[in-house]
Amino acid sequence: MGPQGRQHPRLMLLLPLLPALVPVLLPVLLPVLLPVLLPVPPVGAAAARPNFVLVLADDLGFGDLGSYGHPSSATPHLDRLAARGLRFTDFYSSAAVCSPSRAALLTGRLPVRSGIYPGVFEPGSRGGLPLAEVTLAELLRGRGYATAMVGKWHLGFGPNGSFLPAHHGFQHFLGLPYSHDQGPCQNLTCFPPDTKCFGTCDQGVVPVPLLWNQSIVEQPVSFPELVPRYGRFCREFIARCARLRQPFLLYYASHHTHYPQFASREFAGTTRRGPFGDALAEFDGSVGQLLQALRDNGLENSTLVFVTSDNGPSTLRMARGGSAGLLRCGKGTTYEGGMREPALAYWPGTIAPGVTHDLASTLDILPTLGALAGAALPRAALDGFDLSPLLLGTGKSPRRAVFFFPPAPDPLHGPFAIRLGKYKAHYYTQGSFHSGTTPDQACHGLTPLTPHLPPLLFDLEADPAENYDLLRGQPGPEALQALKDIALQRVLLEQRLQFGESQIGKGRDPSLQPCCDPGCAPKPSCCRCSPQGRPKGSWPSPQ
Amino acid sequence: MGPQGRQHPRLMLLLPLLPALVPVLLPVLLPVLLPVLLPVPPVGAAAARPNFVLVLADDLGFGDLGSYGHPSSATPHLDRLAARGLRFTDFYSSAAVCSPSRAALLTGRLPVRSGIYPGVFEPGSRGGLPLAEVTLAELLRGRGYATAMVGKWHLGFGPNGSFLPAHHGFQHFLGLPYSHDQGPCQNLTCFPPDTKCFGTCDQGVVPVPLLWNQSIVEQPVSFPELVPRYGRFCREFIARCARLRQPFLLYYASHHTHYPQFASREFAGTTRRGPFGDALAEFDGSVGQLLQALRDNGLENSTLVFVTSDNGPSTLRMARGGSAGLLRCGKGTTYEGGMREPALAYWPGTIAPGVTHDLASTLDILPTLGALAGAALPRAALDGFDLSPLLLGTGKSPRRAVFFFPPAPDPLHGPFAIRLGKYKAHYYTQGSFHSGTTPDQACHGLTPLTPHLPPLLFDLEADPAENYDLLRGQPGPEALQALKDIALQRVLLEQRLQFGESQIGKGRDPSLQPCCDPGCAPKPSCCRCSPQGRPKGSWPSPQ
Repeated sequence: MGPQGRQHPRLMLLLPLLPALVPVLLPVLLPVLLPVLLPVPPVGAAAARPNFVLVLADDLGFGDLGSYGHPSSATPHLDRLAARGLRFTDFYSSAAVCSPSRAALLTGRLPVRSGIYPGVFEPGSRGGLPLAEVTLAELLRGRGYATAMVGKWHLGFGPNGSFLPAHHGFQHFLGLPYSHDQGPCQNLTCFPPDTKCFGTCDQGVVPVPLLWNQSIVEQPVSFPELVPRYGRFCREFIARCARLRQPFLLYYASHHTHYPQFASREFAGTTRRGPFGDALAEFDGSVGQLLQALRDNGLENSTLVFVTSDNGPSTLRMARGGSAGLLRCGKGTTYEGGMREPALAYWPGTIAPGVTHDLASTLDILPTLGALAGAALPRAALDGFDLSPLLLGTGKSPRRAVFFFPPAPDPLHGPFAIRLGKYKAHYYTQGSFHSGTTPDQACHGLTPLTPHLPPLLFDLEADPAENYDLLRGQPGPEALQALKDIALQRVLLEQRLQFGESQIGKGRDPSLQPCCDPGCAPKPSCCRCSPQGRPKGSWPSPQ
Repeated sequence: MGPQGRQHPRLMLLLPLLPALVPVLLPVLLPVLLPVLLPVPPVGAAAARPNFVLVLADDLGFGDLGSYGHPSSATPHLDRLAARGLRFTDFYSSAAVCSPSRAALLTGRLPVRSGIYPGVFEPGSRGGLPLAEVTLAELLRGRGYATAMVGKWHLGFGPNGSFLPAHHGFQHFLGLPYSHDQGPCQNLTCFPPDTKCFGTCDQGVVPVPLLWNQSIVEQPVSFPELVPRYGRFCREFIARCARLRQPFLLYYASHHTHYPQFASREFAGTTRRGPFGDALAEFDGSVGQLLQALRDNGLENSTLVFVTSDNGPSTLRMARGGSAGLLRCGKGTTYEGGMREPALAYWPGTIAPGVTHDLASTLDILPTLGALAGAALPRAALDGFDLSPLLLGTGKSPRRAVFFFPPAPDPLHGPFAIRLGKYKAHYYTQGSFHSGTTPDQACHGLTPLTPHLPPLLFDLEADPAENYDLLRGQPGPEALQALKDIALQRVLLEQRLQFGESQIGKGRDPSLQPCCDPGCAPKPSCCRCSPQGRPKGSWPSPQ
């Protein structure tokens, strides 16, 4: 599957430079070589086959948690995780919008490889995450792990649900096939007792269904009941795995804090930050519940909990959007606010509490968890690194570069920006409608694609807000060297990166929209079913 | 001294409203009434006469500490303080520039009362903090405290140093009379071994002197040696007080992280954030040394350490300026970034670790420390509240409002903005040259004074970045009520607030500039003295 066997001949031109390039090439080639060099990566110092709880927030910004400096968020559980675990300051998602970011998280591969572009999947999308992609769940299944996913999938539905989590290694799934605003929401309750959802969400598509594995159990989904149901499902899954002494992967992809915000009775109206704060508090509470379930089953010390977010905040939603903190812009952009994310790794007794400034990415999750589980890595070209030495305190992150692709990438433009060490070069910038409404015009949807030659160059450690282009005025020798190094990274990436066939470009077929009552009319609005009266034994459970 | 005896007759018009206004009036009048109601405030649950270490940073922004979300700052000691103490999210300085902010901190009174406007004191300024003002040091002297100040004074020098700390209750002083950029710095070393200071600082004035009480011990001051000297002085002072079993106030007013950044050999070039980061790290290290000195003398559990900053970041300095994090603008403005500050209260065994969202201000320091020490409050009109219940965990902050005066306030315009509860109304906004260079035009120096009628109204809990005016479109009833409540606060403040005679408006007299060699010529550049050869016993010490 990987491109390593068919490198483009132009790469040969670089061969005479090879000896000098070894230090530069190593981090680039390592992920390609890893499958060859390390068919079975060494297991870390920690217990073999730890459990994994992978928590992904939705549109949560770098600045949204209390532990990342937000003054009015209520995130006590996450903040405790931050205080007792490893908190990342330089952790990146791999796309500035949802579907590609999730593809990268689950495959360890840049989303352009798997074809998850442009934009995101829609109800009725023909495409999905290709079945040939090896996901984290599949990787861990091969090591005997039980696997479950709860929450937002957004990697395709396809004919007969052929792209759903069950086909990507997850034995259990309770959740939504896509974003919870990808269906009409104007009459739905988002906050009990009866506060309707803000806005109208997407029109002309089926109401958003709740899926249990391949079946629709409710359509439209009841937002205020969703997280409590997820909680029960997760607790049962964790308890079952504990009983069976089977290691597990639980992928908890929360809908919070994406628009429209919602929450259960326990959290509705409870926070100072308003609807966003309530949704965030429910997310925080669900993390607290997961930790409690681990404790209840004696698994806290044998489980790595990892929390991050899919992309930056949707400031389009104004006070109902998130915050990138001091970072520039948000969702949909290749500025830092679009892709730098909060990230917490928690594993008491194994991961020492602290803060790391090492570079890391969602691309690294698969190789890292694979290494910790002693799983053989997929033979496909990977873009991630094994961070287990960083987590276990035995080394640094091997990652030196981060590539920033826009929501609609193409081989002509390539990555819009590249970070190498502390330097980031922007070859192109573009606003995004997701990042509207703040005073910074560069973020806004009407700000067009703008090439930069020479690129904009920022020192992200001295200037994390990307305000001061180092190449204006008299750039120093270090900046000029960084520019050269980044240009080389760009060329090397272009040489080795194969764009997969666009899955989202395959378009939509309305008949593929999930409908609980396939024979009803008129579609799509007739697709409505309530779980009322469902026999007790048939309610979603991983048992 | 206070204006309470001569309220303006127009206030009488509000009398019929009085019963309905009691809840609104109480927080406004309480500071005025406090001296009458509580001539000797009750001592808290903690030990009587605790020691106080009051640490003030310079131009440090809300987002500059690791514990406030900065991704590349190195502030381990402050972050430990934050984790083990009480961290404030809604703490305000009382002015957006230096001198007035410091006057408010030491007097508990709005700086317009004491005449500390417009702008800041300069070398040669005729005025200073009026001697009739009762400072925190004087208050605590009356309770038997030893008092020392180290660092930046910036509240006037005056003829024969008549405004210096010695005349405001401080028995010991080692420091600078004003900002360390208020003298030529083009040939000075800011970072060892020989990195010159960035920029040229102020020209046409004497080199910046280091003072020991009333005497100049060095001119110009050696920046890289300054903090180690301060450290020795503080350690000796703390040890002496411990030996004598005398409670003490140590006011440590750091020069960090003001321009031009500097640091001693221990910190030069050690951080990822560059010169700003090095200066910040030295500040952080000095806080660590103060804590170590307390521990060494067995005083950690009997000492309240309070850390905050004088005003927001000077983004004019670009990557060498600080960061307000997610807050809008910085130094010199009445946006949140100008005056909301990091603030940490640390007192192991007495202050429970945690985060508070309660409103608080540097104005509250004097009443709070006074209450903890059992000191009678000054009879002047105070604008601060006793926060000891909040610190001791027995109650909430009594503060409900914060007033935002611009650097050049006048009675016609009054406060530019007022925060009441979670709402903040801007009656006027204006950019500041201190807040230039970021993408937000509203912050820049060329953005003129702009009246807002109706005012801009922000919900600072849902929208701490002040992006979304609640009065645009259809304001809800709660917003309209908030507007009315704030308007009432404004009127009441105007009625009770007397502008003191402007001290800074008294202008400058070059002969008042401190010169170590008064007979030298040509002035001001001839005012240069080295401490080389100074007899050992005459080196600054609080012994």
